[in-house]
Amino acid sequence: MAVIDTRILPTAADIEAAAHRIAGAAVRTPLINAPVLDERLGARVFLKAETLQRTGSFKFRGAYNKISAIAPERRAAGVVAYSSGNHAQGVAAAARLMGMRATIVMPADAPLLKRQRTAALGAEIVLYDREREDRAAIAKAIVAERGATLVPPYDDPLIVAGQGTIGREIVEDLAALGLAPDIVVVGASGGGLAAGVALGVKAKVPQAMFYTVEPEGFDDTLRSFKSGRREINPRLSGSICDALMSSTPGELTFPITRELIGQGLVATDDEVKRAVRYAFEELKLVVEPGGAIGLAALLAGKLEVKGRLVVAILSGGNVDADLFAKLIGG
Amino acid sequence: MAVIDTRILPTAADIEAAAHRIAGAAVRTPLINAPVLDERLGARVFLKAETLQRTGSFKFRGAYNKISAIAPERRAAGVVAYSSGNHAQGVAAAARLMGMRATIVMPADAPLLKRQRTAALGAEIVLYDREREDRAAIAKAIVAERGATLVPPYDDPLIVAGQGTIGREIVEDLAALGLAPDIVVVGASGGGLAAGVALGVKAKVPQAMFYTVEPEGFDDTLRSFKSGRREINPRLSGSICDALMSSTPGELTFPITRELIGQGLVATDDEVKRAVRYAFEELKLVVEPGGAIGLAALLAGKLEVKGRLVVAILSGGNVDADLFAKLIGG
Repeated sequence: MAVIDTRILPTAADIEAAAHRIAGAAVRTPLINAPVLDERLGARVFLKAETLQRTGSFKFRGAYNKISAIAPERRAAGVVAYSSGNHAQGVAAAARLMGMRATIVMPADAPLLKRQRTAALGAEIVLYDREREDRAAIAKAIVAERGATLVPPYDDPLIVAGQGTIGREIVEDLAALGLAPDIVVVGASGGGLAAGVALGVKAKVPQAMFYTVEPEGFDDTLRSFKSGRREINPRLSGSICDALMSSTPGELTFPITRELIGQGLVATDDEVKRAVRYAFEELKLVVEPGGAIGLAALLAGKLEVKGRLVVAILSGGNVDADLFAKLIGG
Repeated sequence: MAVIDTRILPTAADIEAAAHRIAGAAVRTPLINAPVLDERLGARVFLKAETLQRTGSFKFRGAYNKISAIAPERRAAGVVAYSSGNHAQGVAAAARLMGMRATIVMPADAPLLKRQRTAALGAEIVLYDREREDRAAIAKAIVAERGATLVPPYDDPLIVAGQGTIGREIVEDLAALGLAPDIVVVGASGGGLAAGVALGVKAKVPQAMFYTVEPEGFDDTLRSFKSGRREINPRLSGSICDALMSSTPGELTFPITRELIGQGLVATDDEVKRAVRYAFEELKLVVEPGGAIGLAALLAGKLEVKGRLVVAILSGGNVDADLFAKLIGG
């Protein structure tokens, strides 16, 4: 494993700068409290609804923070990204707002809705086979050929700082109510969201406890916390949480999540399905499976939260209509 | 028609009092801005998400404002209400919070989810035939027998004032952004929501323009605005908007909506379906048909809104899973 250059680790000041950069472009998403959920868990629960973010997931924040920082002379060559779908849309939307060309390398099994939405945002899409091809290599080849800028999904200080604005908003909105978070649960894949939110929250509320949540069988982050090094998932596909299938924690994000979080949970596909259905029936929110994994862990009782103030991130809502119909139907 | 006693018309002061009474019990719902909708309409659009209110619709506000004002010596006898579903849940939840018994007279064809959710809130349910029986008469008989308090769906100053807190919050939240509404679109059935929101908004922003929106074929409010008297719908069932099938504007609410609104729109079932689907795909919000009718009118281009600041109320999100699956599926 490469030695991390801690000089490039994002800081609270980078999140502050990101907040100013994305203001007006990103939605300041609401922090939702639902009495029905409070009553069920015996806790005070707040949901950061990044489902309501531009492009339907948190990914727009990091993408816009990164792309708007590209030097003017490099903008004409455009940007390139690889993503199963939400980062793709975030990059496409951010590039469009900046008047730049975007090329997205997407797995051929990505949800159709995510492909369609990415294309609708004006991006060029290059498909690859998730099991056999290396998306990073494909993206790097395009970068080399065009002189374009790569927008990584998580291993970039500007991306992490962009996602970190979520943590900053959570703390601000709770403070306006005279409150502060005791516990934060956040889905983890590459770790950009988890690292960013932990940095953003702990800058102001250092005692807040964090837990990552991962799909069962894709718990590389949890195993990495335990072993102290970046573990790899045995499989690259097969979870209902299509947004949470990175094979290993990020090189940049892992030192952050290990230090600031260090503990994790898993949720099964069935637990995630129940959370998506609960969000439909009781919360009236459309949440994609990967976006509901924190809520899933809470509803499944994976964590003792009685009497505490708990925040879960609803990280995305881009789910195909036919899958959603199945999830809420039975 | 009875002569209205204008001394009992709710005022801005009653809305202020209601806001204090419901604080802590009702959710202060977010006012959501979605860039994708702004871009589509060429306007600045804010959605008041009463879908995220306790019980999944705005009805809790009025019900709690009314029920919490019942004198202590009358509480033991409980409350009675008639409703197709959303008022039922609002009354059941408010009564439960006040430790009171609730009996709800519901049409036999009310959506199953609304019946189940009302029963789950501890209310007793009495079914009636929407086409052949008089729900008000059934409710009044129970009131007479038990000495219970009737909680009307709209024709009550405390109910209207409770719904009016929505208007107050809209104005406050926009003012915090340095903004004010130009146009407000609001679904109308009995007119409690429309009257309340118009009172709440116009107390602070008298120049705001209002439009009611009704299902095609159930446009009693629009026809009443034109004729100056309370018109009656020819049919009592048959719209996809199960929440918007009152037969005529309220006796108390009509003088308010006529004076403060006075103009209305209609939306077809197809336009409403498209709005529900749009809310799922683009906004990631679960909205029931009746709750989406304001959005439907905007998406269908029923109103010139270019360059204006428009607010639509998403009044409820209680929709059966199988119907919702059909609506989003194609």
